[in-house]
Amino acid sequence: MPSGEFDLIARYFTRPTRRQPLGVGDDCALLAPQAGMHLAVSSDMLVEGRHFLSTVAPEHLGHKALAVNLSDLAACGAQPMAYTLALALPRMDATFLAGFAQGLHRLADEHGIELVGGDTTAGPLNICITVFGEVPRGQALLRSGARAGDDIWVSGQLGDARLGLEALRGTVALSKADFIHARKALECPTPRVALGLALRGVASSAMDLSDGLVGDLRHILARSASHAPIRATLHIDALPRSNALRRQSRTRQHLCLMSGGDDYELLFTAEPAKRAQVLAAAAQSDTPVSCIGRMEAATTTTTPNEALIRVLDAQGMTLSTPWTSFDHFTA
Amino acid sequence: MPSGEFDLIARYFTRPTRRQPLGVGDDCALLAPQAGMHLAVSSDMLVEGRHFLSTVAPEHLGHKALAVNLSDLAACGAQPMAYTLALALPRMDATFLAGFAQGLHRLADEHGIELVGGDTTAGPLNICITVFGEVPRGQALLRSGARAGDDIWVSGQLGDARLGLEALRGTVALSKADFIHARKALECPTPRVALGLALRGVASSAMDLSDGLVGDLRHILARSASHAPIRATLHIDALPRSNALRRQSRTRQHLCLMSGGDDYELLFTAEPAKRAQVLAAAAQSDTPVSCIGRMEAATTTTTPNEALIRVLDAQGMTLSTPWTSFDHFTA
Repeated sequence: MPSGEFDLIARYFTRPTRRQPLGVGDDCALLAPQAGMHLAVSSDMLVEGRHFLSTVAPEHLGHKALAVNLSDLAACGAQPMAYTLALALPRMDATFLAGFAQGLHRLADEHGIELVGGDTTAGPLNICITVFGEVPRGQALLRSGARAGDDIWVSGQLGDARLGLEALRGTVALSKADFIHARKALECPTPRVALGLALRGVASSAMDLSDGLVGDLRHILARSASHAPIRATLHIDALPRSNALRRQSRTRQHLCLMSGGDDYELLFTAEPAKRAQVLAAAAQSDTPVSCIGRMEAATTTTTPNEALIRVLDAQGMTLSTPWTSFDHFTA
Repeated sequence: MPSGEFDLIARYFTRPTRRQPLGVGDDCALLAPQAGMHLAVSSDMLVEGRHFLSTVAPEHLGHKALAVNLSDLAACGAQPMAYTLALALPRMDATFLAGFAQGLHRLADEHGIELVGGDTTAGPLNICITVFGEVPRGQALLRSGARAGDDIWVSGQLGDARLGLEALRGTVALSKADFIHARKALECPTPRVALGLALRGVASSAMDLSDGLVGDLRHILARSASHAPIRATLHIDALPRSNALRRQSRTRQHLCLMSGGDDYELLFTAEPAKRAQVLAAAAQSDTPVSCIGRMEAATTTTTPNEALIRVLDAQGMTLSTPWTSFDHFTA
């Protein structure tokens, strides 16, 4: 008589493990990394009311829980291998679990990865996924490699997820088509795995945008500063945005673009000499990219934060930058 | 200006990474498995009210959250390498975090492993740790290797954690000394990592006891049955127990021993010809072990569950076995 916990795991989450030596059902899963590879690992925890709303469809939640983790592998330039899932559920709900598992498995299949282990327990809804990827030693894309003179790039379009969140919160009214578009951006982000792989050896630094452009760019500046202090200049009109976002006021556009959160696009830097290679990587991975600014030498590492990121308008005037990063504790 | 989330991670959980190529602070951590090694991975999620009570000291909670994961590596015979932590907190509480981090780091240091990544968010208290270990290819201890004729062994003593839980719930009154002993078993389990390593090539199967002996033994029976159906005979008086537990009624003793939960001892099997090797592994790892019964051939894989585990008393009489596994959804 399997306990409820084991029964639940078996019913929705056990599938045959083909690529890794041992999957769900033993004390540990076993992974077989190839010789010469580093194993890239990332964990993200999603909490109801913080990372998703109770209104999200279970399939979309399953998709997003894995997507945000794959996005971390993408930011490292790692090839996804496998993942584990730990899940706390207020009650066993077959409809929820069937949908959640469907969204999860579909995205996992798209990336050729499998669920190798995990844990299920009772508790307030909480989803913790850990992903594993491989990257050749010395080739991982890091946050710390940005240098003065580098171009600053982003993939896709920014700000739609935040627009979708605001619409669901009732703070902005959208047309039906714009609402569908923005909600999809929020609930079904596309992890930029193929772009991350194509940027190995091309990008000087990379990370994924989860807390908004301004906050995440600061992480690249901070970690790269141990080499030499740098600051960033961005061109507000160069920030890629959807028609749905363009229909909003400039104030709202800028908020969503600069501190939107939940974009799951790649933010990366590359030497100007590598522009053609960046565009080739974008074409090869079928992912749009936009150059949004440039890194410059800063005079000191103790520059006040506000001056580390300058945002210019079309006339070259500096915008005031009241934006902060999207903080899941306070937003 | 780091957001609260990043500040929190930095303050309590960022320590220099010495053994792995990249630790906390980038999108992914990087691990460098040695050639010829499989990577063993396990995730466990701890929820307040299910896996710990709100009265637990933060240091003990930090210890236990990592200990239950290390116990899974022990059950596989894997050498611990690193771990990630995902933490949902109702609020930022420096006292809690300082104590929690202290308990976590102390146990990590004992095993020479380091925190390489993670995630912190607001939400109902939830701790999800993923551990990574190495095991030479083909040498992992699995649940599926038990064979008819094998001895059944456990490490340490069983049932004290459940006794401690019952005392904290107020369903049993203990002397002060017995309460301290039982509470320590519940809150500060010792993962049997050294024993797991010493049992490579000796044990035919292994797992760690988290849901109680009867439920966990069923997992070994079920997974080993794909080779040939087996059943287990246990000797109730051979089950190792503390003096604190001996002072309880036989009914309570048997409940705690058979379906206690949270023991985090190793349950393993080995051929009778390997008894001396088992005892040598126990001595080498300074871990007591007890032989508690034997595996026998079963006639069919469809035997009703009740008959799969027979429990005998000192006179060789079969005890009725009303015990179920400890289920965190219902217990």
